[in-house]
Amino acid sequence: MASNNPTPPDSTRRSERSRRAIYDAAISLVVEIGYPRTTIEGIAARAGVGKQTIYRWWGSKAEVLLEAFLDLSEQAARAVPREHEDREGREGCEDREGCEDGEARAGRAGGESQGIPDTGDLAADLRLVLRATVDELHDPKFEAPSRALAAEGVVNEELGRRFVAKLLEPQLQLYVDRLRSAQEAGQVRPDIDPRIALELFVSPLAQRWLQYTGPITYEYTDALVDYALNGLSPR
Amino acid sequence: MASNNPTPPDSTRRSERSRRAIYDAAISLVVEIGYPRTTIEGIAARAGVGKQTIYRWWGSKAEVLLEAFLDLSEQAARAVPREHEDREGREGCEDREGCEDGEARAGRAGGESQGIPDTGDLAADLRLVLRATVDELHDPKFEAPSRALAAEGVVNEELGRRFVAKLLEPQLQLYVDRLRSAQEAGQVRPDIDPRIALELFVSPLAQRWLQYTGPITYEYTDALVDYALNGLSPR
Repeated sequence: MASNNPTPPDSTRRSERSRRAIYDAAISLVVEIGYPRTTIEGIAARAGVGKQTIYRWWGSKAEVLLEAFLDLSEQAARAVPREHEDREGREGCEDREGCEDGEARAGRAGGESQGIPDTGDLAADLRLVLRATVDELHDPKFEAPSRALAAEGVVNEELGRRFVAKLLEPQLQLYVDRLRSAQEAGQVRPDIDPRIALELFVSPLAQRWLQYTGPITYEYTDALVDYALNGLSPR
Repeated sequence: MASNNPTPPDSTRRSERSRRAIYDAAISLVVEIGYPRTTIEGIAARAGVGKQTIYRWWGSKAEVLLEAFLDLSEQAARAVPREHEDREGREGCEDREGCEDGEARAGRAGGESQGIPDTGDLAADLRLVLRATVDELHDPKFEAPSRALAAEGVVNEELGRRFVAKLLEPQLQLYVDRLRSAQEAGQVRPDIDPRIALELFVSPLAQRWLQYTGPITYEYTDALVDYALNGLSPR
């Protein structure tokens, strides 16, 4: 990354402008003409930079796109869940002991890694994060590029696996962490594998989004959390 | 459909040969060059029929492909789950009352609609069907065309919705029926919506397959059934 090199302020600003232009060009091209027809040359032309500028920072178009998309996801993540946390995280916390104050929670959620709130109430925390994901999936700015990359990932195993390793799996690990802390608190069965368990509420939402198998609403994700935690069999 | 018209045997056989050739051509083209570049003309040329033959039976390439894929899925469904039923359905049934005999079960499973076995043991029945799905997802004949169609469905909403309405939703409704009968038998909470509940075990498998988010094994699908029915929270 250029930002790791010591560079004078002007050059840094210029680099940042170029990087931003390249991300924007990559995202808009993959939306407009699809992943297979998007090229480094096309991205360079659209961004108004030389293609050597792109090759200096990235090894392939897949890498440019993955980073552009990671950047987009971070923007979306910064914009959406904190608003939710402010609105709903506090409500969910009102009547419980050992509840963190809003500041500590907001601090962690707003940090580099988004994290999943831990108010001590697993159901409330999961409902909150999944509702934020519903909003993100409905965000048009996010939808077209993520669909284009996801579609390519379905038929292009190498890209699919990189997409998962770089973008999806780190997000899923946040659920693993939250479920582990719930296990330690005795709120999740000790015998379950958190990496599989998270899929009971994350994958249904992903499939509805990827395959148009049903509406995506807060009521829906709330039901997923209830069914997953309490089970389908009568208690 | 040509087979609805009264035609002499020779003509019917010729129609069937053409239909089969068209299905095979459609599937192999979408695998080789992708959905967007597959055309009616290309399918006709590969199948060795005139394109008017295709237009007489289908309105668009999407319809040809959906039917070709439906036919492929039916072939796969006929080939795989019955073998499983023979091997495992009986074991699962040994120690329960009201268990159907193997013949009745095999008769239903081999019929037009695949159905989900109802031995009275919901967990065993779901494990059986999901293991059969694991086998199907690993079948190379099935994998490439279903990936190609699924990928196009992600970015082409109209195709995606037809794919779901014609192929996926009828399969999901079999789970709805099985969960309803389990609800009537008191094995599933009366307050759950079966159409959402089925996603707790179906969607994780779908996402692992579509997005390469993890290995697809019997142990995995068995765990999904356990987690979904019994819940993640301690009982």
